[in-house]
Parts: sequence; C-alpha cells; structure tokens
Amino acid sequence: MSLESRTQTIGQTLLAATHPGRSFLAQMREPWDEKLLAWTMEHPGLRTQMFRLIDTLPFLSGSGEISRHIQEYLHQPGVELPGMLKNLLNFTGRESLTAQVAAQTLTTAVSTLARKYIVGENFSQVRQTLERLGRQGMTFTLDILGEAVLSESEAQGYFQKYIDLMTQLAPVDWGCVPQVSVKLSAFYSQFDPLAEKTTRTQVTQAITQLLQRAGELGVAVHFDMEQYKYKNITLAILKDVLLSDEFRSRTDVGLTVQAYLQESEADVREILAWVKLRGVPVTLRLVKGAYWDQEVILAQQKHWPLPVYRRKSSTDANYEKLTRLLLENHPFIYPAIGSHNVRSQAHALAIAEELSISPNAWESQVLYGMAAGLAKALVAQGQPVRMYCPYGELLPGMSYLIRRLLENTANTSFLRQRLEKENELELLTPPQWAEPTTPLPQGETFMGTADTNFAQMGTADEFLQAIVRVKLQLGHSYFLPHCSRERTLDSVNPSDPKESIGRVGLADISSVQKAMDCAQEAQKIWGSTPIAIRVNLLQQIADTLQMQRSEWVAWMVLEVGKPIREADAEVSEAIDFCRYYSEMAEGLHPGYTYDVLGETNRYVYQPKGIGVVIAPWNYPLAISVGMITAGLVTGNCVLYKPAEQSAVIGCKISELISNLISDLGLPQGVFQGLPGWGEEIGPELVRHPAVHFITFTGSRQVGCQIYAQAAQMSPGQRHLKRVVAEMGGKNAIIVDASADLDQAVQGVVQSAFGYAGQKCSACARVIVLAAIYEPFLERLRTATQSLTIGCATDPATTIGPVIDATAQERLQKNITLAKQRLTVALESAAPTSGYFVGPVIFTDVPPDDPLAQEELFGPVLAVLRVADFDQALQVANGTDYALTGGLYSRTPSHIHRAMQEYICGNLYINRGITGALVGRQPFGGFRCSGVGSKAGGPDYLLQFVEPKVVTENIQRQGFAPVAEEL
Amino acid sequence: MSLESRTQTIGQTLLAATHPGRSFLAQMREPWDEKLLAWTMEHPGLRTQMFRLIDTLPFLSGSGEISRHIQEYLHQPGVELPGMLKNLLNFTGRESLTAQVAAQTLTTAVSTLARKYIVGENFSQVRQTLERLGRQGMTFTLDILGEAVLSESEAQGYFQKYIDLMTQLAPVDWGCVPQVSVKLSAFYSQFDPLAEKTTRTQVTQAITQLLQRAGELGVAVHFDMEQYKYKNITLAILKDVLLSDEFRSRTDVGLTVQAYLQESEADVREILAWVKLRGVPVTLRLVKGAYWDQEVILAQQKHWPLPVYRRKSSTDANYEKLTRLLLENHPFIYPAIGSHNVRSQAHALAIAEELSISPNAWESQVLYGMAAGLAKALVAQGQPVRMYCPYGELLPGMSYLIRRLLENTANTSFLRQRLEKENELELLTPPQWAEPTTPLPQGETFMGTADTNFAQMGTADEFLQAIVRVKLQLGHSYFLPHCSRERTLDSVNPSDPKESIGRVGLADISSVQKAMDCAQEAQKIWGSTPIAIRVNLLQQIADTLQMQRSEWVAWMVLEVGKPIREADAEVSEAIDFCRYYSEMAEGLHPGYTYDVLGETNRYVYQPKGIGVVIAPWNYPLAISVGMITAGLVTGNCVLYKPAEQSAVIGCKISELISNLISDLGLPQGVFQGLPGWGEEIGPELVRHPAVHFITFTGSRQVGCQIYAQAAQMSPGQRHLKRVVAEMGGKNAIIVDASADLDQAVQGVVQSAFGYAGQKCSACARVIVLAAIYEPFLERLRTATQSLTIGCATDPATTIGPVIDATAQERLQKNITLAKQRLTVALESAAPTSGYFVGPVIFTDVPPDDPLAQEELFGPVLAVLRVADFDQALQVANGTDYALTGGLYSRTPSHIHRAMQEYICGNLYINRGITGALVGRQPFGGFRCSGVGSKAGGPDYLLQFVEPKVVTENIQRQGFAPVAEEL
Repeated sequence: MSLESRTQTIGQTLLAATHPGRSFLAQMREPWDEKLLAWTMEHPGLRTQMFRLIDTLPFLSGSGEISRHIQEYLHQPGVELPGMLKNLLNFTGRESLTAQVAAQTLTTAVSTLARKYIVGENFSQVRQTLERLGRQGMTFTLDILGEAVLSESEAQGYFQKYIDLMTQLAPVDWGCVPQVSVKLSAFYSQFDPLAEKTTRTQVTQAITQLLQRAGELGVAVHFDMEQYKYKNITLAILKDVLLSDEFRSRTDVGLTVQAYLQESEADVREILAWVKLRGVPVTLRLVKGAYWDQEVILAQQKHWPLPVYRRKSSTDANYEKLTRLLLENHPFIYPAIGSHNVRSQAHALAIAEELSISPNAWESQVLYGMAAGLAKALVAQGQPVRMYCPYGELLPGMSYLIRRLLENTANTSFLRQRLEKENELELLTPPQWAEPTTPLPQGETFMGTADTNFAQMGTADEFLQAIVRVKLQLGHSYFLPHCSRERTLDSVNPSDPKESIGRVGLADISSVQKAMDCAQEAQKIWGSTPIAIRVNLLQQIADTLQMQRSEWVAWMVLEVGKPIREADAEVSEAIDFCRYYSEMAEGLHPGYTYDVLGETNRYVYQPKGIGVVIAPWNYPLAISVGMITAGLVTGNCVLYKPAEQSAVIGCKISELISNLISDLGLPQGVFQGLPGWGEEIGPELVRHPAVHFITFTGSRQVGCQIYAQAAQMSPGQRHLKRVVAEMGGKNAIIVDASADLDQAVQGVVQSAFGYAGQKCSACARVIVLAAIYEPFLERLRTATQSLTIGCATDPATTIGPVIDATAQERLQKNITLAKQRLTVALESAAPTSGYFVGPVIFTDVPPDDPLAQEELFGPVLAVLRVADFDQALQVANGTDYALTGGLYSRTPSHIHRAMQEYICGNLYINRGITGALVGRQPFGGFRCSGVGSKAGGPDYLLQFVEPKVVTENIQRQGFAPVAEEL
Repeated sequence: MSLESRTQTIGQTLLAATHPGRSFLAQMREPWDEKLLAWTMEHPGLRTQMFRLIDTLPFLSGSGEISRHIQEYLHQPGVELPGMLKNLLNFTGRESLTAQVAAQTLTTAVSTLARKYIVGENFSQVRQTLERLGRQGMTFTLDILGEAVLSESEAQGYFQKYIDLMTQLAPVDWGCVPQVSVKLSAFYSQFDPLAEKTTRTQVTQAITQLLQRAGELGVAVHFDMEQYKYKNITLAILKDVLLSDEFRSRTDVGLTVQAYLQESEADVREILAWVKLRGVPVTLRLVKGAYWDQEVILAQQKHWPLPVYRRKSSTDANYEKLTRLLLENHPFIYPAIGSHNVRSQAHALAIAEELSISPNAWESQVLYGMAAGLAKALVAQGQPVRMYCPYGELLPGMSYLIRRLLENTANTSFLRQRLEKENELELLTPPQWAEPTTPLPQGETFMGTADTNFAQMGTADEFLQAIVRVKLQLGHSYFLPHCSRERTLDSVNPSDPKESIGRVGLADISSVQKAMDCAQEAQKIWGSTPIAIRVNLLQQIADTLQMQRSEWVAWMVLEVGKPIREADAEVSEAIDFCRYYSEMAEGLHPGYTYDVLGETNRYVYQPKGIGVVIAPWNYPLAISVGMITAGLVTGNCVLYKPAEQSAVIGCKISELISNLISDLGLPQGVFQGLPGWGEEIGPELVRHPAVHFITFTGSRQVGCQIYAQAAQMSPGQRHLKRVVAEMGGKNAIIVDASADLDQAVQGVVQSAFGYAGQKCSACARVIVLAAIYEPFLERLRTATQSLTIGCATDPATTIGPVIDATAQERLQKNITLAKQRLTVALESAAPTSGYFVGPVIFTDVPPDDPLAQEELFGPVLAVLRVADFDQALQVANGTDYALTGGLYSRTPSHIHRAMQEYICGNLYINRGITGALVGRQPFGGFRCSGVGSKAGGPDYLLQFVEPKVVTENIQRQGFAPVAEEL
C-alpha cells in the first residue's frame, strides 16, 4: 500500500473519530462566542474589526467604555453586521441598559473564547486541566503567556515565573516528565541579532540557569521559535549551550522549526548535522509557524525578501517533506509533529508506519483548545500526544488569543475548511507546492532602498570591518576648492573626543564669492542640461552610496556617534532621496499641456537658479544629499555648507558629487562644497545677490534669521529668494487609556532616545492619560533603564554620545536646572570618556514648563499627565512647534480626532514617531518647525523651479490642422 | 423626370465635359507645383508644414534664408517626406549649390501655384486674363488682395485701390458690366460690432462714396462676406445703405451668403423680406464659406457655439436647400451660385430647369483657377458664368493662396475627391445632412467661462443699459464691518473725475485688530468646514457674478475706466478663478495615499491659517476674486484690502462674499473686506502675528517691502509667513524678420495699449529686427494712431483713461523727460476732460534707457532695433523683470530657441501677450516680477496649504488584513 493510500486511510479514520456532528439544533443554540467566530468567517470586514475590538477589550474599564468601543469598532463603513449582532448593538447612550447588555454579552463571549485556548489563569486551574489531559493519555508542555519584555526587570520577571512554575510542577506526579516551553527573546530585553555578542552572553546566562534549575527539578525544557528575525541567533545560542559540556548529555530539551520558513529545510539539515556531532538526541518540534501576517508585513514594509512561503499549501507541502526528514532521523532526534491538521498528522503516522518507527520514538503535538478531538483520536491510535498549553492571564495572553482566532477563521485554516467543506475527504488532498513565480504585489509608487537586514548572522561584521578600515583613514586633511589651507577645523569622534576624524580647510567670505562666480557660469550650462543627464547624476550618487554603504555607515558612526543600525538607515535614506527626486523630476519635466484648437499651451518647469544648502550634523549624509540633489536635479547649481560637526562627511559628500560631475564633463560650479563656520560664511551665503534659494535644516533660531535675511533685497539682486527651512520640534506622543502598552512603551523609548534624542522628529514629551499613567511610567522607566549606553562603534549600543561638548554641557545644565523644579523618574548614568548624556525622564511635567516647551535635542523626556483625551490634544498642540506627533490608542474616535486636530506635520498612530521614509512618509512641519513643503514628498521639488507657460498660436492665415470630421 | 434624376444627368454631362483625362505619362511629367499638392494630399504631416512654409516664403530674403526655412519646416519629426522631396532637401550648408537649387525649385513652384489662382499682379496682366475669359463667354468680378487693414491710412489705401481699379475698368469694353468684389471690414480699421455706431458711420461713409463712384463709372459692386463675427453688422450696414433713397434703385449691387453658417437660411429669408421691401432686386451670391478652420478654432477657443456646420456634407446639403430658396425667389433677387462642385452646380441647373427660370435670371460663379473646366462646361450648357478673380501681389495674397490650397487638398474637397474617387459618379451623390448630435470634443481639462460674443447685433445694449442702471447708484456710501463711518475716501470715474463712484469708510489699525480677532475665531470653524461647502461657496460666487455680469462690467467701466470688452473678459476671469480653484481644491483634497501592508499613509493638505489679500485696482474684480477664493477654498480665513482706486468695487465684492458666507451660516470672520489706505493698514496687515500668508498683486516696490517685512517674526508669532506676490514687468515682444506683420502689428498694438497699458502683462518694449524695422514701425505707428481714445463707457473706445491724476502726471512727466533724449514715433492727442494719456511710441530706444528698463504702467511703448535674433533675445532678457514675453516669427528654430531661452513667466508666440486665461495660461513671473507659483495654475493652491502626513500602523498583535493569496 502506497504512502498516500495509507495517509488517506489514516486520515479518514481520524476524521471519522473527530467529526463535529453538530445538529441543526445545536447550531441554533450555539453560544455567543461561537456565533462570534462564525460571523467573522462570513463577513471579512467584521472579522478585522471584531478582532481589533477583542484585542482592546481587556484594557477597557467599565461597561460604558466597552459599549462605546463596541460601537466605534463595529459601526464602521464596510463592516456588515449580521442581524442578531445588529440588534445587540442597537443602543444609544453608553450607559443604557441595552449598552450594558451588549458590553456584558461581548465580554462573556470573549472570556469564554479565551478559556477555550488558555489552560488557566493560576496554577490550580492549570493543574486541574493538566490532570484531566493526563487521564486522557496525553502529556503536556506549558507556555507562560506574557507581555512584551521591554526591560531587564521584565526579563527577570519572565525568568522567575518559569522558575516558579517549574518549582510548582516538580512535586506533582504527572505520570510523565513535565515540560515547559520558553521563548529566548523574553530573557533579554535588548535581544538583537545586530548586538550578537551581548545578546548571546545575556541569553546564555539566563538559559544556563534555567536548564540547571530544570535539571534539578526534573522538568524538561523546550525552546520555542518566534519571529524570523530571531531565528538564526536563537539557533546559534541554543546550539552552543546544548553543546557545552554542562548540557551536552541532556535529552530533556528541544528546539523548534517552522515549516513556513523558506530556510526551514536547510535549518533542519544543519540541526541534524549538529545533533549528530552532539551525539545525544534532542526533541525537534516541527510546526507550521504562527507569525505569517507579521512576517509578510515586515518584509513588505522593509523591502526585504519574504522569509515565509506565500501560499499555505506550500507550507503544508514543506511540512510533509520535513516530517519525513525528521522521522527518517529519529534515532538522532525525537520528532514532535505539531499540527491540528488531520492530513498532516495522518501523513506523519503513515510515514512512521512505513519507516516502522516505534510510537515511542516520536510524538504528536496539538495546541490546547484547537483540536481536542484530533488529540483524542491520535491517542486512540496509540500515538503519544503532547498538548501545548498556554497559561496566564487574559490581558497578556491577548496576542496569543488573537493568533488562535485568526488561525481558526482564516480562509485557508483547516478548522475553518472543515466547517465549510461539503465533502470532508477533500481535506485529505495532498498539499500542492504552489509558490507564485511572479513577484509580490507592491502597490507602492516609489520603492525605497532596503535597510540592511541583520537577521542573518554575521551581517554586522561587514560594518565592523568597515569601521576598522575607516579608522585607518582618520585624521586626514580635506581641502575643497576655494577653501583655505591654513585655517582649518578639526572634527572629532564624540564617542572618544581624543580621536580626530579629520582636518578640514575652511571657506571664508572670499571663498563664497569665488564659488558664486563659478556657479553663475555653470548655471548657464547646468540649467539647460537635459533632464536625463541630471537624473543620471543622481542615480550615480545613489549607486555609489549603495556600493559604499558600510563605509558611509562607519564615517557616521565615527564622526557623529550614530549607532550602526541608524547609520545604515541613513544611507538608505540618502539613496532614497536621490531616487525619489529623480522620479519626481522626471515626473515634473513634461509639465502640463493645455492645447486647444489652433493654440498649444505648455506649462513647464525651469530651474530657479543658484541654491545654497545649509545642512545639519544629525543626518550628515541623508539630509545633505536630499537637499543637494533636490536642487541639482531641478537644474540649479548648488553651494553646500555642511555642519561644522560633520565637516569630514561633508567633504566626502562634496568629493563624491564633484567627481561624478567632473566625470560627466560638467563644470565644477554645478556643485561646490563650502565647509566653514556658520557664523562666518552663513550670512554671506544667504545675502549674496546671486542666490535664488536657501535650503536649510537646523535650529529654529538660525532658520528664522535666514528667513528674515533672505527676504531683504541685496544690492544687485533681481529676484526674490525662496527659503525652505526645516527647524526644530517639541514633539509629543499621546498615550491614550486604550493604548497597547507593549507598543507604546517601545515606541516612546525608541522615539525619545534613538540617536540620543538628536532628531528633529524625536519625542520630547509623552502625554499620558491618568488612567494608565502609573503602569506606563513604570514600564517606560525600566525599559529606558535597560538601554545600552556606549560608543557608537559597539553594535550593542542603543544610545551613543551627543554630538559635542557644547551639546553635552547645554543638556547637563538644562537637566540640572529642571531637576530643581521637577520630579526625576529616571536619570541614567553614562560613560565619562566621551560626550555622553544618560537618558533622563522627568515626570508630571507641567505643560508650560520650559522642559515641555523648549527643544533640547538630547535624551531628555518630559512625561505629562492629563485627565482625558481632550486635554491630551490640547497639551500636544500647545507649543510653538508642529513637526511630528504620535498617538497610541485603540479608540477609533480618538484616532479619528487626532487625524483632524493634532497640529503637526507628521502624525504617527500606534507606532514610533521617528524614521520617516522618503516617499512613504514625506517629512516636515510648520509653525516654528519649518517653512516649505515636505522633504521626500510630492511637492518638494516645486520649491526649486519656476513654472513657465509657453503659448503658441499655431494658426497661419487662419489655418491650423482641424480635424475635418470634428 | 425627378429633380434628382435631372441633377444626375446634368452632373454626368458636366463631369464628362470636364474630365481631367490625365495619362500616366502626364502624371510622371507633372511639374513641381502639382507634385507639391499631390504630396500634401498623401502626407497630412507634410501638408501642414508645407503650407506654413509657403506662407512664410514671400517674406524670406535670399536663397540662404529660404533653404534654411525649407529644412526647418520639413525636417521635423512626424513629417514624412516623399523620396523625391527628400532628395531635393538632402543638402547641408545654406549656401551650397544644392541648397540654392532647392530654394529655387520651391520658389518657382509656389509662384506657379500662385499664378494659377491670382489673375495678375498688375492691371495689364489682369486685362489680358479678363479678356480671355470674355472670349470664353464668361463675365468676371475682381477682388483686390490685400494685407489686413490695421489703420485708417491702410483703410484709405484699400478704398483708393478700388477707386483706381474701377477707373481703369470703366473705359474698357468688356462686353458686360464689369464688377468688383469688396470687403466691408477693410474700409475701417476699427471695424467692430461692439462699436456698432462708429463702425456703421465709418463704413457707410466709405461705401456710399464707393457706390457713388461706381455708379458714375458704370461698375457693379458686390459685397463679399468674411468671418462670422462681421456678418451681422455687415448685413445691417448694407441693408441700410441699399435701402437709402440714394441707392434704393441700384440693381448692380450684391450681397453674399455663406451656406456653412447655421444662420444662413434665416439670413436668406430676412434678405428676401428686405429686398421685397426695397422693391428693387440685388444679386445674392451663395457660397459655401472659406473660413471654416478659423471659425471652428475661434469658437472652440472662446467656448462659443459653433457658427458653422461641423460636417462638409451638412454644408453641401444646406447649400442645395438655399439654392432652391434663391432660385424660387428669382424675381426679387438675382441668384449667383458660387461653387466648383459639379453636383452643386448641376443641382442648381436642375432646379432652374424645374422652375423654368431663364438663364438670364441667375448666374453661376466659380473661383479663378479652381474649376476652369467646369466654367467652360457651364458656358457650353448656355449658363451665364462669372469668374471670381483675385488680383494683387503674391505677398498680400498669401492668405488667399493658402485658403485655396487648403481647399483643394482637404479630404472633403470636391477637387481632391475627383482625383481620388474610383467611380466618378459617386461625386454626384446627394449630400446628406450629417451634423453630429454629440457635443464638440473638448480635450480641455478646465472649461473656462465664455466671454460675451458681440457678433450678435445689440449684444452691447445690455451693457450700455447696465451702465445706465449703475450710474443711478453712483455716489453711495459703503461702510464695511470694523470700518470707520467718519474717515472715508471718495472713488471717482477716471473718464470723468467729477463723477463720484462712491464713498468708502476706511479701516484703520484698530479695524485690523478687530478683524484679526474675528478671523482667528472663524478659522477654527472654517478650517474644518468640509471641502464641499467651501467649493459650494466659490460656485455661488461664480454663479452670482455670471448672473450680474453686465452690472460688474458697468462698475469696472465706471470706477477704473476699463473698456467694455475688457471688463467683460474680466468678469469671465473672476468666474474662472472660482471654478478653477474649486476644481483644484477638490483635486487636492484626497491628497496622496501611500499604503503598505500593515500601515496606511495619507498625505493630506490642511489650511495654513489666516491670509491677507492685498489687491490691485487694474483687475479690481478678477485678481481680487482669484486671490480671495484661492485662500478661502483651501480653508483659510481671508482679510481683503482692495486698492483705494477701486474701493467701491472692493466693497461690492466684500458684500457679495460676506452675504454668501452669512447665508451658509458661517461666521463673518471667514472673510472680511478692509478698504483703507495702503500706507496706513498695509504694514499692520502684513506684520500681524496671526497672519499666515499674504497674497499681493501690485508694484515691485511694495511687493518687495511686504516680502521683507513678512519674513520678520512679530512678537507672539509662531510660524513663518508665506508671501505670494505678483509684481511688475517690462514685457517685450520680439518681431522677427520672418514675422507676419499683419499679426505682429495687431498683437503689439493690443498688448501695448489695451486698457491704456495698465496691465502687468502689457507690452512695454518691442524689439524689432533691423530687416523689417521700418515697415513694422510705420504700420505700428499708423495702427496706433487709428485707435479710439475716449470715455470707457463708449463702446467705440479702444483706449480709456489711466487710473488717476497721479498716474496721469507720472506718465506725462516720464514722457516729457523721455522726449528729451529719445525719438518720438507717435504721440497721440487725448481728451482733457478725464485722466487721459494718448499712446506714445518712442523709436530706436537703447536697451539700457530707463524707458526700456523701468515699468511705466501706461500707454507708452519703446521700440528697440536689433541686428539679429541673438541680440533680440539678449535685449528681451536684459531687465530686472520676467513676466510676459512675446515673439512673432515664422522661423521654427527661433521659436524653439525662444521657448528655451526667453526669460519670462508667460511666453506667447505669434499672438498678443495679454489676456492669459485661467487654467489654459496660468499667469505669473519671476525675477522682480513676482514670487510664488502661477495664478490660475495647477500649483497655485499649494501655496495656501500645509501638507500633513498621517501614518497609521494598522497591525494589532501582529495582525493586519493581509490577503492570504498574496
């Protein structure tokens, strides 16, 4: 009998044993929780909103809030409500009796649902369930549900829970070895493949202790697998630990492989090689994988290759292939086949039969609550079955619950199909490999460059090596044309100020004049250079940056103290600017046509003339390249003054662009770098009568000065100048009562302290609703405390130095002063060897305190307490700035109001407020945050062109070609 | 036998008698001129370019210029050249032998062509031809070809030529009464149906003299029909003159009706009624019409109903209908059936036969050179035939030649079809009525409002009546909210300063503050008012202006001395602004969407805030409404300061808009009019910290002040202000050596002196190539001299007053000073009763003379002589301004260069440089002419909005709706 026939036969047996067999009457009487699932399957719009509502539910206090959210979520355009649900929701007034009924009904239904998938909220409940499973002939593995681990205290808490659990498990006689399942990322709050060394050290330490204690207690430990980005480092750590002398002989441990990963087969083969080397078997659990949506979203958003299979059937096919591979290697490993798909389990049984593997040599696993019938049927077949049992409270378990609900209601879900298929036997059809050969649908008008994906082990090495190479080039001198060879400035490494980055010859007033003369000559040529050549220049800049990515990262790490991941993203941004502005310029080029009979009308864009770019140090590459290329691609000659603090990178950019221009046979006057002291040459650059526009990014004070100065006519000037200025911000994030704190804390930490808060977009104020103020603050405090402060060259660093001694002193002074009037929630220590400032959090800051009004540009965060959402918006809007803003909320009406009322240029909802992407999130603000249209946006280039209309009467002697058949 | 059968029989006879019968050999040997026509029929692209080239040819001097133009015209993308022509044009170097051959070949071919259609260049040639025609049994009518009549001296010249011709014709015995054909529009250079009274007087005087002299000489006079716009007034004048006692008994006169006009049947019936009243017959010539392209183009460009039939076959069908009508009325009129279409003539003969009309009671007419065979065949049938004989030089006859060539080579042309049809009898198919019921294809993205079409008699009356009505409202007082009732200004009629237009209560600093307070309150509401309501407001403004068109015209005529036609166009422009900005705002509203999986990104536009509009007096309605509505529709509250000189119109606009806002239930602070002294309230409006943007149109000096002042931060201000300023110009028109002087003179006169030169776009400099300097200047001088200076209320006025005494004095002073250093070509007298300044032309003005550099804003024109086109461009570009520019040239390379190198915002080629239309010709300049994007253009509204990006992470617990079948 062939394998497939056996699979079918076994499958039919299992199906028969597990037939739901629900009568019509039973369906009529089905409880709310089942109705709810049924409805979501029938109405895709309702499905999304219902799961979002369920996700929010545990965070809402009182039936008023619950009924309000029910209405806000479910009364939406596109959400079709089944009649019964419509009746239930047909209430007005949040406190009415019917509203209370609705709230109660839904809450009960969700609790009922949760109890189906979660074995218990406390150990006594858990013990009851596990003993029942034991009576049914099943073993178990216990997984403690938890919130995201954002801090070391939370990591410690997670660890301790497992120790406690194991301690509780050990004394009981389960009739089998009790097992727990753990997630590696929860053992270290800064778990990060880029910070490989630290992550390995921290995690190894935790699991060593865990395994030791488990060994003492006689509890088996299984290691779960999480998101793809953690996979390689997880396997690397586990292989090392389990190969160590201490644990090499342990068989009561296991690893997990996810069949939806394209790399899974290779991983299994490597694990097999490793386990053979180890000589002692471990359990290898084969699952399909539970993060498919997330993995797809992340890959699409980041423009990374998709790590998972696109089609469920491909995953299923791969699962069968790996099942065989595992079972064939059963002496070396103990296979655990985890699936609630009857076909998958039947197929495993058939293979085991074919290979004559004893049932004791492998086991089946199913998730608690997902396929109780199947588990029983497997037991009945004499197959060992382990139930995966999540344990914990509903609130932290929400993401688990949502994953299970999604899984059960997905179109491709086995459980759903079982309910819907006319002919049950179709469920046993062998899965087909079905990966599309066409690329993923993009739907994006502009495809940004992908940042480096550090998920692959060793990726960081390329950057570390580049840092070593660049270190050999430090201390050189840079003399750009027109600049002095005598007067120079020294740029130093802010992580280590003793280290000179380079010496830069300075431009002075006479340099400016010379450069202007060159630019004026060059403008005649550049202004009429075909768009294709201008675009080509930008493409070459982009290609060069991409080719030299790691070198540019190294220069930024060293000269401005930017951590590697953020420097890497900055290279991408610079490349994106080149490519986006190229596309935009090509789009502008044809202009508009407005022809009528006998007359052509062309609306075209021509260059403005010479532009001055005054760049900041905090994005020394991306903002410089963006401002420069926007001016160049529209046909304007550009004079570029880099910031003093990043003068070496400024010179490198200048050399790069000047060389490419030279290669194109164009005059050097097209682009000229002019490093110099801002106070000295800035005013002259702004004042010069030949200048047509100034593109500036920097402080509010300087921006306003430039704006006013540029508007004055200089002698000999015969046009009005245009100023595009990006200035400061005092950006707020509102944390609503319904916020997902896992997200909110993470987003605030990242937004406030990324690059030591030295971003225009950085979060300087968190406005927190009183209802969740305390828990939020506590998690924020500990999460911030867990950040790694250090040299930017260290991949583990999350917070590097501030830019220079002046900034350090200014920040320290402001912190000292603020401490005199405000409460400090956290003040972190910092190394003293460089310009370091440890993150500081002030709490209960009054909205009018200078700390909540004035930009500090450093790792200092003000936490403000507000009574309600109205007040939150009012406080958020209550500064001179309007750059970025954020909101964490799961209340649809609040999200909607924020979209309308939040005064800022870039509003981010339920995510961090930094890291705007070119094209996707055009960046810029108004009020005192800036003037001009958004960088990386559809209107940006319009600021550097003059529209011209050419109208031609094409009649001659009353004749123009008119179609005779008009 | 039915009429149709007779038509067919006669047609076949005529066809047989006129069969071209050309052998293959004859075709091979056909001369260049015939080849040329054949090629244009085969290659539509070549046809257009070839006719343009032929049009240019007589103006070119020397074979070098000719060969250059041959290449420029015919070596174009899309122009397919037949092999033989390609060989002929295969030369390089304009003076090479082959180039000379090409030039010579083409010139000869065109001369040969011209000689086919024109009876002679002098009387002795004409006499020879006419005598030959006489021998062939034909009579004739002579038409003197001429350039456009742009001045009274040219009109006088035209008149005199006819007197001379008649004097030469009279003594000769032609065997018949000699006849001349004349065009009415050539008797008066300011011929204009709007100026009905003057036109009637002038033209009546000329034709009275002509008819008297013709009577004395025994020469018959036939009146031709020209463009549709002249038709009604032409018929009205002729009916009056020919009904007068002096001419009522004359039978040797005739009128013309064009069958392509939709009104032609009605016209014929009216003529029949009139001629019956007259009691003495006249000739009625029925033609199809020769201006079809022009009529279609004009109607399409002006958005007027098409006066002609769209289909040739409809015209043919109408022609047959009118033929019957004429012949049926033969005792009252003498029908003349003019056509070279065999079917049309056969049909006329058949009707005459059916009605038993004697051949002496009507005649056939054909054009000389178009159908000689048909004429002979008709004579052979015993039918009287008159040949229409154009007479004159090639150069002024060019438009006639082009018309004939077009006619012969058109797809629908009888002559062409005869050459192409396989079965000749198809040519006799009865014409079918074939007017499409679908509207004309538009192809325009924005449909502007049509100006009033004054072609219909009496249209001006509506405006004259409105002036009477408005005159009754003069002298009233206007007190807008916040304005003083004590301090007022008086606005007067510049045509008659004794006449007060009204008294206006003034705003002062405290009014500004009050208005700002209201605006700040209103901004909260208006800024979030749905786009549909904002758009609705604009639509209501537009509808009201349209409904009150004649009143608004009257107010402008009276308050700012704008002539009726230009005031009418201004109302259209105001309406267009409302409608265009509505469309643009609706287009902006959705913003951009940039969604990726798991994240939505919306780029939307929000209002900036309070805007100040500072408006000029020269377009008191259109520019005000444009600037106001642009601010309003984008959600900004607007404070509007009208110019002092047009304060009453400013108040009327304010009342109109405020009332509509009130009707919508919106607060008055949304829009507030603040009439006041610019020096007093202007700086405060600009300085006020609540203001977000200033939209200004006015002088360079004030614009630059506002620009500088607005860039200074005021205390309490928390944003940077945006200034959009339209300022002055010193606009040039280049008249190239290849220019069509008929066009160029007309365009320059209109551009320089329209509204007395008080337009930003007005032409202040004409840059003329030496080669045609003298003839151009002379025609310019006389054309300008012929303009009618007077009160704006008079429909005959082409130049009204300047705006006020200050302007008058300033202009007079500048003219006096300039006369001390420059040569005056023309200084016209002007009435002394109002603020009149007669047009002045200075000649040979050096490019650096203040008169060629500084804006005067009045009817003063500098003529500059340049050696070549390079110099022309250099001089044109050599001022501080860059607003409008013009070029008259028929040299493709010069047109191309101007498109690239002419520094101006709006470049017009081969047409006047004023009268930009909203949407079609977005308007605005750069250099010191302005800052900001073009009014009425696609980017204008972007200046009044702030882009905002809203990014929402729509993942919840790692879940977002991802298509499972990705």
